[in-house]
This record gives sequence, structure tokens and C-alpha cells, in this order.
Amino acid sequence: MQFTNERRLDDGVVERGFSLGDVPGILWTPGSESTRVPLILMGHPGGLGKMYPRLVGRAQHSASMGFASATIELPGSGDRPRLVGVDEARADLRQTLAAGEPVDGIVDRLILPLVEQAVPEWQAALDALLELPRLGGPVGYSGGVIAIGVRLAVVEPRIAAAGLFAGSYVPATILEEARQVTIPLHVLLQWDDEGNDRQMALDLFDAFGSREKTLQANLGGHTGVPQHAAEDAARFFLRHLS
Amino acid sequence: MQFTNERRLDDGVVERGFSLGDVPGILWTPGSESTRVPLILMGHPGGLGKMYPRLVGRAQHSASMGFASATIELPGSGDRPRLVGVDEARADLRQTLAAGEPVDGIVDRLILPLVEQAVPEWQAALDALLELPRLGGPVGYSGGVIAIGVRLAVVEPRIAAAGLFAGSYVPATILEEARQVTIPLHVLLQWDDEGNDRQMALDLFDAFGSREKTLQANLGGHTGVPQHAAEDAARFFLRHLS
Repeated sequence: MQFTNERRLDDGVVERGFSLGDVPGILWTPGSESTRVPLILMGHPGGLGKMYPRLVGRAQHSASMGFASATIELPGSGDRPRLVGVDEARADLRQTLAAGEPVDGIVDRLILPLVEQAVPEWQAALDALLELPRLGGPVGYSGGVIAIGVRLAVVEPRIAAAGLFAGSYVPATILEEARQVTIPLHVLLQWDDEGNDRQMALDLFDAFGSREKTLQANLGGHTGVPQHAAEDAARFFLRHLS
Repeated sequence: MQFTNERRLDDGVVERGFSLGDVPGILWTPGSESTRVPLILMGHPGGLGKMYPRLVGRAQHSASMGFASATIELPGSGDRPRLVGVDEARADLRQTLAAGEPVDGIVDRLILPLVEQAVPEWQAALDALLELPRLGGPVGYSGGVIAIGVRLAVVEPRIAAAGLFAGSYVPATILEEARQVTIPLHVLLQWDDEGNDRQMALDLFDAFGSREKTLQANLGGHTGVPQHAAEDAARFFLRHLS
């Protein structure tokens, strides 16, 4: 892992860009001098540049509660090479939804290649991040793409708790994998998410094998998560990572 | 309203039994000397005696956050006269559920008479309680029977926010009334509630007309509400009644 730049934000949080091979990422650590801080891997829909304002806000909120946050660019997003077939699948999904037809096969083509490539990259990032002196376990995963979060929760034992955002379609194979998830979960659902299928999100929540799982649904669209929901999610991580 | 007894609990909370005509009730006020405190009407499934341990726990938690709590016995429960037909409807519901048959008409017979009689009693209790020197508005309603909470939220303008417990069946007419509810709502759902229909609870949440509404679902049965869910509900009232 190579650090590419560093700056200190207004609230003292230290923001460092890094690259891990061809994958760019960002690490935020609290300004306080505490020796070790738990780490939250921060998921997003892809495109670190356009997502930056929301990501830094989430990272600063987490830092105020004592967490470091890190994220990496998704395969096919930002300056990374396109994923063959995924842009096409996204266009097909839009058209098929507009026509009111079933989307199963298209969702597989859109999400599965992303999951297959992204999950090992997140694991490699975790390897590198946990070698830094201040970053200790346990580790949380927070946000979307929810299918990436599900796969990580199944295959990556260092992840101890996940706060997932039910904001994208889920392939049937991921729904099956969800039954193998056993870590504590806090799932956010925007009740009127225009980019999501509500029943699919409820089915996914039902499928999770975890003994401790909470679904919090709030009125509003994809980007309308209320402030109190972000606070409840942060308290979930305080309970499980502190 | 006649006070019938008074005692001070370990944490300083003052508990007073009262009767309002033939209806017994309990009022809990925080031990602090603050002049006015917001009031939460505390719903329950009926039977103040057997519910007391859980009710006093909820009241003490609310008092620690600065709220007074009050509750009254439901029609047909505790020492109050049976409601004609309701015991029979409850037995019919159990049998019909066991047989896997539709329960709509039975739910109406079980819940509607309760709502019709209870709601004016809660309103009369509110009239009397708000005349007490320390109890000011705004007022919250918390808990079950959810159909009573829905009706109160529609007809009683003094109720400014409701934390509802999706723990009982809901007549179709109440589902319709839910569309007229506009106050902020925080709805708790136990995902595996043995005494409830999950889809009905989700449909009810969907039906509420409120612009601010949150559904929080947790794994577990009817009485398994986790501690963190109680805390989130209390913070909901802090946001809206303080």
C-alpha cells in the first residue's frame, strides 16, 4: 500500500489517499492520540470522486465516535477500467424495470462480476490496513453495495459486524449466501428507494442467518437517510466494535 | 381522577395509582424537581397486574430520560368487566390460526370493540392527567395495542408522536385509518412475533400517512425486544417531545 497524499480536516481527522496496486483508496483516522482504533470499511456504489462528499461526511461522523474508516474504488468505477458487460447490464436493468419485466438474469450480470472482483480487493485492502500501527480489530463493514457486504460477511472472518444499506438489487445466489451470515447486522432500508425492490430487501433481511439482526426502514428515497438513522447505525458499531 | 396510593421507587421515580371512574391506572413521574415534564401514554395488551413488571421498567427508563409515563387498564382486562364476545373471539382466533384459515372477521370482533371503548377512556385520562401541575404537552403514545395507538393518533390532536409496537392483529378499518395519521412514528416489529402477522405489520407501516416514520424490526419473538431497540425508541421521543 502506497500513501499518495495526506491532509488534516477541520475537525482534526487525518485523510490519506492510497493506492493498492491499481486500486485507489482513502483512509480517515480520528485526530485523537488514542493508540488503537477500530476500523470500518466503508462501502459505496462506485465512483470515489463523485461519492467523496458523502463518504467524508460518514467518515467524520465515525471518527467522532472513535472509528477509523477506509474505502477503495470499486472495479469498473472512477478511473478504473470498465467491467465488460456491466455497463450494458445497467442499461438493460433500467429498460427492463421501465417495462415492468422480471430482472433476475440482468441483476446477476450487473452485480455478480462486481462482487467476484471487489471482494478479494477489499480483503487485500484489509490485509494492508491492519498492518498500520493504529488500526486494530475488530473490523466493521458499512454501507452498500449490499451484495459485496453479504459476501464479505461470509468469507472474511475479520469482519465482526456489518451495517448494510439495502439500496441495490440482490442476485439469488447472494440471497442464498445470506443464510450463512452469522455476525450482528444492522440493515438500513429506504422505504421508497427508487433504485431498489422493497420486497427483495425484506426477503434478504429474513434470509440472514445472524442471531442479532435489526432492520431499520425510514420513509424516503435512496439518498434520504435521516440523520437519526445514521446515529443509530453508529451506535450499532459502538456496541459491537468497541 | 382519584389517587389511590403513592410510593417512591429506588431511583426516585414517584409511582401513583389512580382511578378514573371505574378505570384504574398508574402514573410515574421522574424524581427530579424540574417543573414540567412531557407525558408518554404507555400502551399494553391488558392486565395491569401481570404487565406491571414490564410497565414499571419502561416507565423508569422513560423517567431517566425526563418523561412522565401513565397507563390505564384496558376494557375487559384485569378486574374490569369482561367485554362481551371478546374472550370468545380470542379463542376463535387461536383455533383459526392453528387451522391456517383467514382471520379477518375474527380480528374485527377481537380488536374493534376494544378500540371503540378504550380510546375515549385514554382521552379522558389525558384530560385528567394534563390538569396535574407538572404534566405539560406535548404527549406521546408508546406501545400496543397498535390499533388503539392508530385510532388515538388520528382522533387525539394532543398526541404529537407515537412509538407503536406491531404486536397484534389489525382490523382492515384500522389499516384504512392509518392513512390519516400524520404525526411522527417509530414502529417496533419483532420479526418472529408468534402473536402477529408480519406482512400485516409491514402493510400497516406502509399505510401510515406520516412524512416521518421509522420501522425497526429485530430478530426474536413477542417479548424479545432488545435493549438497544428500547433506547432507540426513547431517543425518538426525545427528538419529538422535548
